[in-house]
Amino acid sequence: MKIEEARQIIKPIMTNKRYEHTLRVAETAVELAKIYDADLYEAELAALLHDYAKCLELDELRRWIETNPLPKDLLLHHYELWHGPVGALMVKRKFGINQQAILDAIHYHTTGRAHMSKLDMIIFLADYIEPGRDFPGLEEVREIGKTNLEKGCWLASRNTIQYLMAKKSAIYPESFHAYNDLTTKIYGGM
Amino acid sequence: MKIEEARQIIKPIMTNKRYEHTLRVAETAVELAKIYDADLYEAELAALLHDYAKCLELDELRRWIETNPLPKDLLLHHYELWHGPVGALMVKRKFGINQQAILDAIHYHTTGRAHMSKLDMIIFLADYIEPGRDFPGLEEVREIGKTNLEKGCWLASRNTIQYLMAKKSAIYPESFHAYNDLTTKIYGGM
Repeated sequence: MKIEEARQIIKPIMTNKRYEHTLRVAETAVELAKIYDADLYEAELAALLHDYAKCLELDELRRWIETNPLPKDLLLHHYELWHGPVGALMVKRKFGINQQAILDAIHYHTTGRAHMSKLDMIIFLADYIEPGRDFPGLEEVREIGKTNLEKGCWLASRNTIQYLMAKKSAIYPESFHAYNDLTTKIYGGM
Repeated sequence: MKIEEARQIIKPIMTNKRYEHTLRVAETAVELAKIYDADLYEAELAALLHDYAKCLELDELRRWIETNPLPKDLLLHHYELWHGPVGALMVKRKFGINQQAILDAIHYHTTGRAHMSKLDMIIFLADYIEPGRDFPGLEEVREIGKTNLEKGCWLASRNTIQYLMAKKSAIYPESFHAYNDLTTKIYGGM
């Protein structure tokens, strides 16, 4: 799929606000891909499609999870986590996107996972630091994320889990695996 | 095993400091068992034996894990987590303790787990709040733990994970399962 085609596909199915966010994620992803010597096309396409399922009704998201080979434990967690896995499957089915690296980056962009690929990390981080975001601790993640991709993702992952725990929320296992894996890679075990 | 026998068994294998801690955990566990209508004998025995393996050399703890049916992923995490699972197996093998509830409470006293039994929670909490402990946030756990066992354990579990994340440590999966399970039970899903 061409980049311009992806833009045309997402624009009509999104609110303006979501579309603007998506464009900023794409810009940020390309910027990170340049820094970390990743495939610019893959980064931009994955970013443009990362929220493909975000504007679906919750009932439809739920139905996608229930009736497809997607992890059923998603339904026990916050619906905010549903659009990544569903979106990856939708763009595969609807548009024949079959680069597994792109599908994975879309699938895991909200939670991360253990053993994230470079593209996974770029999309995960770009979504977190895009210039429209503004919350405590973000500047540090932006700064570190532009010189150390793993550490930027680690900080984003830790901040997210801490934020959710402060809100008395459960943590989706993939989020926790991402944190543990990055912690071990960066700071060692034990 | 009689309570007095357990005291005699642990005294010579522990430092004085560890023995005093153990007696305080046992007192606290009995106090909690009275509040929550649990078996006083089981609570006291599990508490007296909970740190049975704590004073072993690390090499010996590691060997127990390597050569027995214990989770090997323990070895990828901090050695502080090893003595619970090893201790449970040791008291079973050495003294024929076969009440699974007691063995489980010893096994999981450091991390917790999903679906903790009442005895699991009593030992987990007693170890955290015994009167010799002193760290930020403890008073709140002590207070809540004496009127709501699950919520006390939830607070202890959350505090521990937050403390470890602040230290840039990985989190053992059982700790995380305990937090998620208690969060869902107390505050609901989603």
